Amino acid sequence: MNAAPDPRHARLAGLIGQGVAAIDTPALVVDLDAMERNLHRMADFCRARGLRLRPHAKMHKCAELAKLQMAHGAVGVCVQKIDEALALAAQGVEDIYVSNEAVDPAKLARLAQAVRASGNGGTRFAIAVDSALGVQRLGEALAHAGVTHPQAIDVFVEIDIGHGRCGVAPGEPALALARAVAAHRTLRFTGLQAYHGSAQHQRPVAERRDTIARAAQAVGHMRALIEAAGIAVPLVTGAGTGTFIHEAASGLWGELQAGSYLFMDADYAANTPDDGAPAFEHALFVKAQVMSRGADRAVIDAGHKSHAIDSGLPRVWWPEGLSYANGGDEHGVLRGGHLPALGETVWLVPGHCDPTVNLHDVMVGVRGGLATGHVERLLRVDARGAVG
Amino acid sequence: MNAAPDPRHARLAGLIGQGVAAIDTPALVVDLDAMERNLHRMADFCRARGLRLRPHAKMHKCAELAKLQMAHGAVGVCVQKIDEALALAAQGVEDIYVSNEAVDPAKLARLAQAVRASGNGGTRFAIAVDSALGVQRLGEALAHAGVTHPQAIDVFVEIDIGHGRCGVAPGEPALALARAVAAHRTLRFTGLQAYHGSAQHQRPVAERRDTIARAAQAVGHMRALIEAAGIAVPLVTGAGTGTFIHEAASGLWGELQAGSYLFMDADYAANTPDDGAPAFEHALFVKAQVMSRGADRAVIDAGHKSHAIDSGLPRVWWPEGLSYANGGDEHGVLRGGHLPALGETVWLVPGHCDPTVNLHDVMVGVRGGLATGHVERLLRVDARGAVG
Repeated sequence: MNAAPDPRHARLAGLIGQGVAAIDTPALVVDLDAMERNLHRMADFCRARGLRLRPHAKMHKCAELAKLQMAHGAVGVCVQKIDEALALAAQGVEDIYVSNEAVDPAKLARLAQAVRASGNGGTRFAIAVDSALGVQRLGEALAHAGVTHPQAIDVFVEIDIGHGRCGVAPGEPALALARAVAAHRTLRFTGLQAYHGSAQHQRPVAERRDTIARAAQAVGHMRALIEAAGIAVPLVTGAGTGTFIHEAASGLWGELQAGSYLFMDADYAANTPDDGAPAFEHALFVKAQVMSRGADRAVIDAGHKSHAIDSGLPRVWWPEGLSYANGGDEHGVLRGGHLPALGETVWLVPGHCDPTVNLHDVMVGVRGGLATGHVERLLRVDARGAVG
Repeated sequence: MNAAPDPRHARLAGLIGQGVAAIDTPALVVDLDAMERNLHRMADFCRARGLRLRPHAKMHKCAELAKLQMAHGAVGVCVQKIDEALALAAQGVEDIYVSNEAVDPAKLARLAQAVRASGNGGTRFAIAVDSALGVQRLGEALAHAGVTHPQAIDVFVEIDIGHGRCGVAPGEPALALARAVAAHRTLRFTGLQAYHGSAQHQRPVAERRDTIARAAQAVGHMRALIEAAGIAVPLVTGAGTGTFIHEAASGLWGELQAGSYLFMDADYAANTPDDGAPAFEHALFVKAQVMSRGADRAVIDAGHKSHAIDSGLPRVWWPEGLSYANGGDEHGVLRGGHLPALGETVWLVPGHCDPTVNLHDVMVGVRGGLATGHVERLLRVDARGAVG
């Protein structure tokens, strides 16, 4: 399975210090100045409210960015998959929470091996559970890996607060699970995982606020129920870029998991902004170019192998006034007033950051703006394709 | 930019000879028996009609499969991007046609270097053009690379036969371009690229037949116009898995570019089948597993980082009777009659092969069926992410 050295990677390495014009298309480009403003805005928001920030690294899958976030106040990062955690840990990310479930013994064995290997000051891992089988299998995997010390791994019980995906039902089922975790010698019950995914893209502020208000009620009751059983609930963790201001205001969540704020995609930007929320800028772009021209259209070389379209088509950022129509895997069809000429550069804002980043091995970091900037550094997508 | 050796790849290599149960989820799995039946059916179809087959390798991006197709009668393969061509050529694929345009001097320089490097019996390349600028830039790139011999590269003029994406308008504009190619010393005018993308998924047979009948009229007129100008048109190339039987019947196309037939996705399978067309089987699957269970749902560990959803959600292949709802990047939500238990294996048929394959580094080739088979070999996706 050994591939030859990839000439695309050598080409990318040669970009450092070059102007934006030298970037081959299509390419995933990060506006580092905009990204750093987003980084500081979110860090400031959490610091001012005394909240922990644990950004979701499933979005960028990049150890360098995870470490940058931690250097600016984040307590660690989240991921969704054990293999994402292992890929980031291998690059030195020191605090990683898998905010998702695994019941597969093989996957849990990989995590347990990593917990064992990092026993003396390496990466700190945490994971969520939503089933008794998950608790049992996690405990078995740790035992099998020889991890026997008490409270070797932090475990959150995920409750379904209305999203209708993973998570145990609040009430007795969740209490039973919290008891099982708290009673397990090698697990540490760290609190509740409470994320409402479908609230993130409710467009009106009032809808998002009301959804999170209902979710907060469920979280509050659940926390009280567990505490009434004599089990401390150290932390409630959750929230995303679309709703975090409401979780923050609730007084229940102690840790925010927003991820997309760093890059801001077209889908999140379509939400009506919350009063008092930090204003995040687009920092992730696809650089494309016109490779075919008709009288009524300009066809660019970026289709849905360059950017994900699950949350809508990309927005044309530059030139202004153009619409993007789906042209398939390798093409986009631009229409509108003043069409760009053959060979001209076109900048897109992807509809959805996370799966867009996952299409690329490397993000090209640009300093000084898209028009006249230069390539400062390359950001490797370390956990690209880490779906296991 | 050097990454550490990827433990995921070592794990995959260890799968050879193991049963299907050993395949970690989510994984892209090829049913080799079904794939080979598809391979033979298409080869037989083309052989019986005296047609050239040049399958689209943008679908599988895999040199091993390209070579397998060529060993079974294909004259070569198509790709859509120059970097795809270079990735496959680097793995020994010997005849590659970029059935798409490029006007970027940097991209054309890469192609020209490869043409030069393969001058003595390496890979044979071809490319499409749809603009005078494209012809000029291609010629300049070849000259700059020192490729000076006559007719060094085959060039097809792409005409827009109704798809409305790339391609020059039939009639005088296309004739002018054919003249420019034919007059260029280092280019060989090889004929017409004529593909109707949007016809591929018209569901009723009659719609596809009528669309290709109109396209064939345009192709016939165009060929006559060029021949009347004293320029031979050696070949018309095009067609896809949804329509190839109609292009084949037209007597105009001499070469078919269908690609998806090898794997057959859910979107193509939703077409009403043509009379007399080979029956292709699903050969590409995502192996997933249930990682969370509710009373009304089973949540699996495969979302749209595991399979593309641009052409519709995946079909649940096994267990039967279940529907798949989008659960985001990492999850799918199954509903229906008899829900599988936590940890149970679920098989999906992706909505669209091409961008699904592009999410994975490796396809796991299984012999003997999904239920009781074993892993025979791994198929590396050599051109994954080769969008440039």
